[in-house]
Order: sequence, then structure tokens, then C-alpha cells
Amino acid sequence: MLESDVNPLPPVIIGIAGGSGSGKTTVALRVREECPGKTIRIIHHDSYYLDNGHLPLEERAKINYDHPNAFETSLLVSHIEDLRAGRGVMIPQYDYATHSRKRETKLLDPPDILFVEGILVLESPGLRDLMDIRLYVDVDADERVLRRLKRDTRERGRTVESVIDQYLNVVRPMHLQFVEPSKRHAHIIIPEGGHNQVAIDLIATKILNIIRERDRLRALDREVRLARSAALQDDQPRPQA
Amino acid sequence: MLESDVNPLPPVIIGIAGGSGSGKTTVALRVREECPGKTIRIIHHDSYYLDNGHLPLEERAKINYDHPNAFETSLLVSHIEDLRAGRGVMIPQYDYATHSRKRETKLLDPPDILFVEGILVLESPGLRDLMDIRLYVDVDADERVLRRLKRDTRERGRTVESVIDQYLNVVRPMHLQFVEPSKRHAHIIIPEGGHNQVAIDLIATKILNIIRERDRLRALDREVRLARSAALQDDQPRPQA
Repeated sequence: MLESDVNPLPPVIIGIAGGSGSGKTTVALRVREECPGKTIRIIHHDSYYLDNGHLPLEERAKINYDHPNAFETSLLVSHIEDLRAGRGVMIPQYDYATHSRKRETKLLDPPDILFVEGILVLESPGLRDLMDIRLYVDVDADERVLRRLKRDTRERGRTVESVIDQYLNVVRPMHLQFVEPSKRHAHIIIPEGGHNQVAIDLIATKILNIIRERDRLRALDREVRLARSAALQDDQPRPQA
Repeated sequence: MLESDVNPLPPVIIGIAGGSGSGKTTVALRVREECPGKTIRIIHHDSYYLDNGHLPLEERAKINYDHPNAFETSLLVSHIEDLRAGRGVMIPQYDYATHSRKRETKLLDPPDILFVEGILVLESPGLRDLMDIRLYVDVDADERVLRRLKRDTRERGRTVESVIDQYLNVVRPMHLQFVEPSKRHAHIIIPEGGHNQVAIDLIATKILNIIRERDRLRALDREVRLARSAALQDDQPRPQA
């Protein structure tokens, strides 16, 4: 019997939001580390930035990428619906240098657990309605801005001035308008993000429990199918020995 | 073999703080409901109000009962230490009418899980250092004040004016000075309190896992003791049949 014969259970969808530099991805990765051998995947909302390939490069650079309208969230929603229905999806790949989508996409098969990560994933009602658990990583603004400053100057070769300008003109106002208010849609708020071992352990325990429950259901499902096919074979005329 | 022969494991200590009217006790009770048959107990910080029986009644009424100094927190700390060491403790009973301790106390034996509940339980370093998991129930101030108003007028026979006066003069300033800042010591912040089924389920899952782990350790401990006592009996001269 093929594994694909087994009716897959829908993935558990865990949303993880929080301001820029709060350590959302770190939390998801740390939780994944505590669940070795399990299928846990992370989708980044950023992969669903609208494709602005048709606009002149100058125009593309002016877009506010911290605003909900910068994302093709409807595509992410339909991808999550596909995954829940047991179908694989092709995740778009975003090219930050040209502000457009790459031609390649990446196949994602339905995992046991799916993290949906991004500053605005709790802001969209369509998106958050699909989530079984909604997390918000809460880190003070001064800590977050310093992390962002470090990252953008070291890893992305930007000047301190340009990071500060962008932060004050775009990141901060969008955070106050959209990200911070979305916190009230969280089931659990995690202070200190990736350093918060107790919170990470709590989430990992829940996930492992869900997976264990699913493994049990899958095994049961397999047994029922085997029993049925054995019963069918009993009804067939037997070849003579 | 008596149950008391089994070396008890220290209780898991879960602190649960949050503003007045946030539903701290409701969260603890809801978690307990999801763990039927397990020994989960709740200690209220309020039981450890200092005994002001020696002061004139007028003086006692003037005390700020929302300030950390109103509590005998050192006694609570030593009680938790006793429980962790496997010893039962006598919990004081507070008489709100006379602002003094009753003569009776209440025995508490070490449970598997101990909730320590109160607006200021995360404010005291000595107390929070003893906690394995620190929770803060976060509910908006307007919702909280309306719950308090309802409760105090209906159940405690107070006038609307006296509740408002006390709230503005005592409850609110103490909340801003001591309760709200203690939120940053939480491992997990729970918005919406008792209505937040996902958060309650997450905490209950963790607790059930801890208890399951302990039961396994206890059973192992029992087996080792039985094996040892059997080995001892083998060394004794046997009576003739």
C-alpha cells in the first residue's frame, strides 16, 4: 500500500506575527528544533509580495512594503486552503533586488504543521481565520530597531542613515497602524521571542501532542484499510493449492 | 507499600498575574477542568495579606491593599519552598470584613501542579524565581473596570460611587505602577483570559505532559523499591513450609 493512499490530515496552521526584528522566524525555527523528524514547514508572507515586474524600477522602489496592500494575501490564503485539502502548492519566490517575483517557484507538500510568518499575518481576517493557533512575538521597539539596524548595515550593506530614514518614515508608522493593533487577535503573546525557552517549550509540547494524535489516527486509518482489503480478498474465489 | 513511601516530586509552580478583573482565577480553573483527576491546587496571594488585627479597625480600612507592602510575601515564598520540599503547609485564611487573619488555617499537601494567583505575583522577585511557568492574563482596562464594578456592586453590596472612587484612587495607580510593569516577567501573555480556549488548551496540554512524565517516574521509583525489598527478602533465611 502506498503512503499516498492514506488520507492525509489537514496541517495545523500556526500564525506567527510581531514587529520587524522581533524574532518571529527564530521562534518558529526553535520550535522546529524541538520537534526533530516531524514535518514542520514555514511559509513567509514576504514570499507573497505582489509582483511589480511591470512597473519601472524607480516606481517599484517607492512602494510601501510594510503596508498590507503590498502583499498578494489572497494567493497565500488559497495556498493554505489547498494545503488543508491535502494538495501541494507552488510557493512564489521573491527577488528583493528587483522587487519582482522570480520565474521559479518552490513545491510545498502538506506538512503536519505549517507556520505562517510575517509582520502582518494577524492583520488579515481571511488569513487569521485559517489559523489554529495565533502567536504574536512581542519585543520592545528599541530592541527591535537596534536588531534591524545591525542586520541591515551588516548583512545588506546599507548605511545607518538610510536604515533610520526608512524606519522612521515607513516601518514605524506601519507598525503602529497595522502590526501592533493586530496583537489583539493573538491567542498567545510571547515576550522576548527566541530567548523565551518556556514559551517555545510550551508550543513545541502542544505541536508534538497534535502530531502524536495524528500519527495514531493515521495508523488506525491504515489498519481499517488493510482489514477492508483483507475482507475483500476473502470474498474472492481462492486458487487451488 | 504506602503511597507516602514514594518520594514525591516537587510540584510544578505556575504563576498567574494580571490586573484586577482580568480573569486570573477563571484561567486557572478552566485549565484545571481540562485535567480531571489530577492534583492541581491554587494558592491566592490575597490569603497572605498581612494580619492587621492589632490596628484599630479605622486604620485597617485605610491601608492600600493593592500595594506590594500589604502582603506577607515572605511567608508565601517559604510555603512554596516547603511544598517543593514535599512538606504540607498551613495556608492562612483572610477575613476581608475585619482585615485580619482568621484563627483557622487550611492544610495544603504538595500537589502535582500549583497555581500561584494574584495581581502582584510577578512583581516580587523572590516569588517569581520559584515559578516554572509565569503567565500574565492581559485584558483591556475598560473591560476590567466594568467587570469589577459589576462584581463589587452585585456580590459585595457596594455603591457604584465607592467602587469608582477606590478604582481611581487606589486600583488604577497601583496597576500602572506595579502590575502592568510586571508583565515583562511573564513567559506567556494570555489576551482575553478565560475566553481564550486556545491558550487554555496549550497550558493544559503542557501540564498533562508534565504530570504524565511524573507518573512514569513515580512508577519507576516504585518498581525499583519493590525490586530492592524483594532482593532483601531473598537474603533472609526462609521459614520452613
